[in-house]
Amino acid sequence: MTRKVLIDCDPGIDDALALMLAHGSPEVELLAVTVCGGNQTLEKVTRNALCLADALGLDGIPVAAGADRPLVREPLTARDIHGDTGLGLVELPEPRYAPDRRHAVEVIARTVLDAQPGEITLIATGPLTNLALAIRQYPEIVGRVREVVLMGGGVATGNVTPVAEFNVAVDPEAARAVFTAGWPVTMVGLDTTHQSLATPEVEARFAGLGTRPGEIAVGLIRSYRHAYRHNQAFTDPPCHDPVAVARVIAPEFVGVRRAPVDVELHGELTAGQTVVDLRGLEPEECPTAVSTELDHAGFWDLVVDAVRALGEPRAQEA
Amino acid sequence: MTRKVLIDCDPGIDDALALMLAHGSPEVELLAVTVCGGNQTLEKVTRNALCLADALGLDGIPVAAGADRPLVREPLTARDIHGDTGLGLVELPEPRYAPDRRHAVEVIARTVLDAQPGEITLIATGPLTNLALAIRQYPEIVGRVREVVLMGGGVATGNVTPVAEFNVAVDPEAARAVFTAGWPVTMVGLDTTHQSLATPEVEARFAGLGTRPGEIAVGLIRSYRHAYRHNQAFTDPPCHDPVAVARVIAPEFVGVRRAPVDVELHGELTAGQTVVDLRGLEPEECPTAVSTELDHAGFWDLVVDAVRALGEPRAQEA
Amino acid sequence: MTRKVLIDCDPGIDDALALMLAHGSPEVELLAVTVCGGNQTLEKVTRNALCLADALGLDGIPVAAGADRPLVREPLTARDIHGDTGLGLVELPEPRYAPDRRHAVEVIARTVLDAQPGEITLIATGPLTNLALAIRQYPEIVGRVREVVLMGGGVATGNVTPVAEFNVAVDPEAARAVFTAGWPVTMVGLDTTHQSLATPEVEARFAGLGTRPGEIAVGLIRSYRHAYRHNQAFTDPPCHDPVAVARVIAPEFVGVRRAPVDVELHGELTAGQTVVDLRGLEPEECPTAVSTELDHAGFWDLVVDAVRALGEPRAQEA
Amino acid sequence: MTRKVLIDCDPGIDDALALMLAHGSPEVELLAVTVCGGNQTLEKVTRNALCLADALGLDGIPVAAGADRPLVREPLTARDIHGDTGLGLVELPEPRYAPDRRHAVEVIARTVLDAQPGEITLIATGPLTNLALAIRQYPEIVGRVREVVLMGGGVATGNVTPVAEFNVAVDPEAARAVFTAGWPVTMVGLDTTHQSLATPEVEARFAGLGTRPGEIAVGLIRSYRHAYRHNQAFTDPPCHDPVAVARVIAPEFVGVRRAPVDVELHGELTAGQTVVDLRGLEPEECPTAVSTELDHAGFWDLVVDAVRALGEPRAQEA
Repeated sequence: MTRKVLIDCDPGIDDALALMLAHGSPEVELLAVTVCGGNQTLEKVTRNALCLADALGLDGIPVAAGADRPLVREPLTARDIHGDTGLGLVELPEPRYAPDRRHAVEVIARTVLDAQPGEITLIATGPLTNLALAIRQYPEIVGRVREVVLMGGGVATGNVTPVAEFNVAVDPEAARAVFTAGWPVTMVGLDTTHQSLATPEVEARFAGLGTRPGEIAVGLIRSYRHAYRHNQAFTDPPCHDPVAVARVIAPEFVGVRRAPVDVELHGELTAGQTVVDLRGLEPEECPTAVSTELDHAGFWDLVVDAVRALGEPRAQEA
Repeated sequence: MTRKVLIDCDPGIDDALALMLAHGSPEVELLAVTVCGGNQTLEKVTRNALCLADALGLDGIPVAAGADRPLVREPLTARDIHGDTGLGLVELPEPRYAPDRRHAVEVIARTVLDAQPGEITLIATGPLTNLALAIRQYPEIVGRVREVVLMGGGVATGNVTPVAEFNVAVDPEAARAVFTAGWPVTMVGLDTTHQSLATPEVEARFAGLGTRPGEIAVGLIRSYRHAYRHNQAFTDPPCHDPVAVARVIAPEFVGVRRAPVDVELHGELTAGQTVVDLRGLEPEECPTAVSTELDHAGFWDLVVDAVRALGEPRAQEA
Repeated sequence: MTRKVLIDCDPGIDDALALMLAHGSPEVELLAVTVCGGNQTLEKVTRNALCLADALGLDGIPVAAGADRPLVREPLTARDIHGDTGLGLVELPEPRYAPDRRHAVEVIARTVLDAQPGEITLIATGPLTNLALAIRQYPEIVGRVREVVLMGGGVATGNVTPVAEFNVAVDPEAARAVFTAGWPVTMVGLDTTHQSLATPEVEARFAGLGTRPGEIAVGLIRSYRHAYRHNQAFTDPPCHDPVAVARVIAPEFVGVRRAPVDVELHGELTAGQTVVDLRGLEPEECPTAVSTELDHAGFWDLVVDAVRALGEPRAQEA
Repeated sequence: MTRKVLIDCDPGIDDALALMLAHGSPEVELLAVTVCGGNQTLEKVTRNALCLADALGLDGIPVAAGADRPLVREPLTARDIHGDTGLGLVELPEPRYAPDRRHAVEVIARTVLDAQPGEITLIATGPLTNLALAIRQYPEIVGRVREVVLMGGGVATGNVTPVAEFNVAVDPEAARAVFTAGWPVTMVGLDTTHQSLATPEVEARFAGLGTRPGEIAVGLIRSYRHAYRHNQAFTDPPCHDPVAVARVIAPEFVGVRRAPVDVELHGELTAGQTVVDLRGLEPEECPTAVSTELDHAGFWDLVVDAVRALGEPRAQEA
C-alpha cells in the first residue's frame, strides 16, 4: 500500500533529490509540497520548488509557499552550500507551474484534516517553521498524522556549529514544538546522513540513465561535492534530505531506535542542538525515534530507481 | 474621528473591564475580539468573551478563539488572580452569542488586510501568541497596522517573577516577535498599571450607576481586590488591561516615551522580562514606546463614563 | 565606636573618592585595601591604589593586588569612563608605597580571621572576584564578617547594558557567589548612586578647601563630568563608590530595604543584571538589602569633611 | 624518565583505582594529592584520600583538602554510584595519615612553582574547582605546567544528563576556566572511559594477586558493578578515572586527537556539556585534545601491574 505523504522543504540541492526520490517511487504518493525559507530565501526556494514541479512532472500536486522566517530568530540561509539560487550550479527554466495560493500552513492542515486519521505522513527536509505554525493554529492535526519523518539534528554531530545542524539551528523553537508535540517523530540526523556519501560511482549511475532527471541529479551532486569539499572537508558529499524519504519508502535501509529528543533553545554554544537521550535501554514507549545507521547501497538503489522512473514516461513530455 | 480597533484578549477580570471601556467609548470602534489562552484556558476565556459579548451587546462584532497555548512553552494560567472561571466571582449566564468560526489569526489578518493601510489599531491584553502567529503567517499585516498597544511587561517590575509580567512571561517568544516586528508598539507595563488602583471610591462610582454593566464592574473589582490582597499584598487592586485601551482613547492620560524594548528569552531568573533601554536621551526614531505614568482620575473617569454608556441603552434590553 | 573596614576596589575615579571618604572619616578605621582588575587592568588599578596610598597617607595599611580577571568570563574595562590610567586626567607621582606581597585573597582572609567575629566590614567597589575567591577558598570567613556593603547592580537600571551595572556585569558569577553566600550584604546600586550627582556647587566646595586632597577631588570630579557627559548623557556625574562607604559611616543618609537579590548569569539581554525581588512586603528575615535613596546634601557633607580632614595634617608632609 | 604528577581527585571508587595506578606505576612519580568535593562531600572524600594514603603507602606525599563546593553552583554528589562513604562497600580503617594543612590551591600552586617549567603534569579526576581557583589566584602556573590530563566530559555522551558528565556538570564554570586557560589539556571523556569495562575476567586478575591492594581493587570493582547495574544499565562497570592516569603512563593505550573544547554554561538541557568541535580536519595548533579510543587489554594490564606492585613491598609493612 502506498504511503500518502506531504513534503515540507526548502529546495535546496538535497531537497531536490528528496522530491525526486518521493515522486519517482511507487511506494509513496506525494499529495502536496510546502515550502519554507531555509537553504535560501523563501522567494528562491519557492521558485526552485516550482521549477522542480515542472521538471519532475508534479502535475496537479499543490506547491505552496509558507514561512519566510523562523518563529522567533532572524533568518539564516546556507548560501555557502546551496549557492546563490539554492540549487547550486543547476539551471532550470523559468517555472510555468502555478503555485497554490494558500499558505503552507493551510495546505498542511487541509491535507491532514481531509484525509483519514493516521493516513498522512509529513516529511520535513527544511526548518520546521511551517509545521510548528500548523500545530499551533490547528492543534487537531497532531492526533491525525501517521508520523513525522524529518531530516534534521544529529547525535553529537553538527554542521553550522560543532553540535547543531542547519535545519534545527535555523528555527530551534519550531523544532522543539515539533519534537515535543506528542505525535510520532523520526529524526533522521547528521550522524546518519553523513553515511549517504554520493561517491563518483553513485554519480556515474545517474549519468548512465541518459535522461533529463538523471542529468539534473548529476548536476545537483556535482554542485554539492564542490560545496562540501570547500566548506566542510568532505571528499564526497552527503545527501541528507532523501534519507528521510528513504526511511518512509524502505525503513529497512534506515535503522532507528526510540529515544527522547528535545532541542536546546538557550545555550551559548549549543542553541539548536538536538538533545537525544541514549542512556540506558531503549524506552518502550516514546513518540520520538532517531536514525542510527544507513544502508548505503540500498539507499542509492532507491534513489537511482526513482530517478530512472521519473525519466521514462516523462522524458518525451518535456 | 473614531479609532478602529481589534482587541486580542484573555478575559480575565481586567480584560472584561478593557472590553467595557472600549465598547462604551465613542472614541473607538470595536471591530473584532480575538481570544488567546492566558488568564485561564482557551476554552474558559472564550466562553467569558462570549458571555461578555452578550452582556455588553457586542452585536455583530466577531468573537473568535485562537491559540490554546504559547508558541514554544507549556501553558500557564493565573487562576490565583482570576479564579476558576477566569472572571472571579462574577457569574454570567450561559452565552448565546455565536462565536466566529474562523481562527483568531484569520480574523486578525482579515481585519487588517480588509481595512485601509494605517487604519487598524491592535490592542492586546493577553499573551501575544495570536499576534505572533498572525505576523508569521501574514507578514504583510505588519506594514498596514496603525499601532499595537499592549498591556504587558514592565520596567523593573514583575508579578509572576520579580522581573517578569504575566502576559509576557506566558509567551516570551511571541512577545519578542511582536516587539521587534518593526511596527509601532506601545507597551503599557506594570509600573504604569500599578498606578490604576481601583479604590473604594472608584468602586462606589460604578455601584452608583445602577445598571447591569455597573454591577458587573463592581463584581469584577471586588473579585480583583480579594485576589490581589491575598496574593500580591495590594490593598486596592490595579486594573491593568483597561489602561492599554485608555492609551488609545485618551493618550493624554497615559504618558509614554520612546525606548527600545526587547524580551529576554533565555535567562534563568529573567526569562519573560521586558528589557527597556532607558539610558540616555529619548531616541528620536524608535518604533517602540513604553508607558511611564497614568492620570488616575482621568483614567477612571473614562472607564466610569464608558460603563455608564453601556448601561443606558442596553439596560432595558437585558 | 569606629567600624573596622577592608576596601576591595579597582581605582577608578570614584574608588579614589571612596578611599578618601573612608580614610578621612573618624567613624571608620581602614585596615586594608585590596585591588581587583575592573575599571582598568589590574596592573593600572594597583598602581593607582599605591599612588593614592601615598597621596592620602595610608601609612602602614596593606595594599594588595588580587585577581587580574573574572572567575569565568573575559576581562572588561571601563576605559571610556575612567580613561587610560584609570584616574581620568588626574596625574599622581610614581608610587613609593610598597605593596603587600600577599594576594588579595590572603589579605581578605587574614584580616577577617585575625579579627573578632563580627568585627570586620567588607566594602567592595569593584568587581567581586576577590571576594568570591576568598569565600570559596576560606568559607569560614562568611560567618565572621559583620557585613558586606558593595557598590554594584541596580534595580531596573544599568549602564553597560540597559539592565546591568559594570561591577556586576564584569563578573556576574562572582557577584552571585557573594550575594548568595548567606552573610549580610547591602547592595548600593545605580538607582541610588545616580542620585549622588557632583554638581558644580559640590566641586566648588572641594576647590575651596585649598588642600592637595581637595585638588585631587576636583580633578577626579572634572574628569568624571567630562566622561559622563560624553558617554552617558549626564550633565553632572554620579559618584558611585563613595555612596557605599557613606552607608557604613552614616546609614541614615543611605536608605535601604531588605529584599532578596540574585544575579542573572544566563540571559542574552540580562546577563549581569541584579534581580531584586521588591514584590509584596519587606521580608523580615533576609540577609540581603538594597539601597533605595540617598540624602544628597548629607552625603556630600560627609565627603567634603573627609577630604578636609585628609588635607589638614598631611598638607605639610606632601 | 618518570613523569612528575599531582592528582586532584574526589575519591570516589574510580579515583581510588586511579591513585593505585599512579602510585604503583614506575613511570610516574606522585608528588601530591589534592582533594575536591564531588563524588561525595569534601569531608568524606578527604577522609577517603587519607585512608587510601595509609593503604597504598603514600608516605610523605602531601594530601590536602580543597574546595567544598563549586565556584558558582550548589554542590552535587554521586551517592547513587559511590555510596554513603564514597568508596562503595569497601571499608578502610580510620586514617592515621596526617593531612597537609594547606589548602589544595596552595599545594597545587607550590608544586608547580617549585618545579622546573614544564615538569609537572596535573591529573584531575574530580570536579575542576581546585584547578580553576588555582589559575585565578596564581595565573603564573598556567605557563609552567607540562599538561593537564583530566577525566571528564564526553563527545555526545553524558551520565548525569543525556549530554553532561558528572565532573564537568558539577562545576561547569570551573571546567570552562580550565579548558580555555591556554595550557595543554587532554580530556579523557565518557565515550572513551565507557570502553574500560571491568569484566569478571578483570576482577579475577585482581583477586588472583592475593594482596591487600588486590582485595581493595576487587571490592571497588564489585561496588561499582552493583551501582552501575542498578543505575545506568551497565553489565560491567566502566572505570573512568584510571584511564586519565593511563594516558600519562602509556599514551599508546589512549588514543587522542586535537580538537577545540569548551563547556556550555547556559543551556537548559545542555549545561555542563563539553562542546567538542570535530568538524573538518584535525587542527594543527590547538591546546586541547580529546581521547577517542582505549586499548582495553593494555589498559587493564597497566592497572593490574600497578596494583601488584603496590602489594609486594608494602604487604609486610601493613
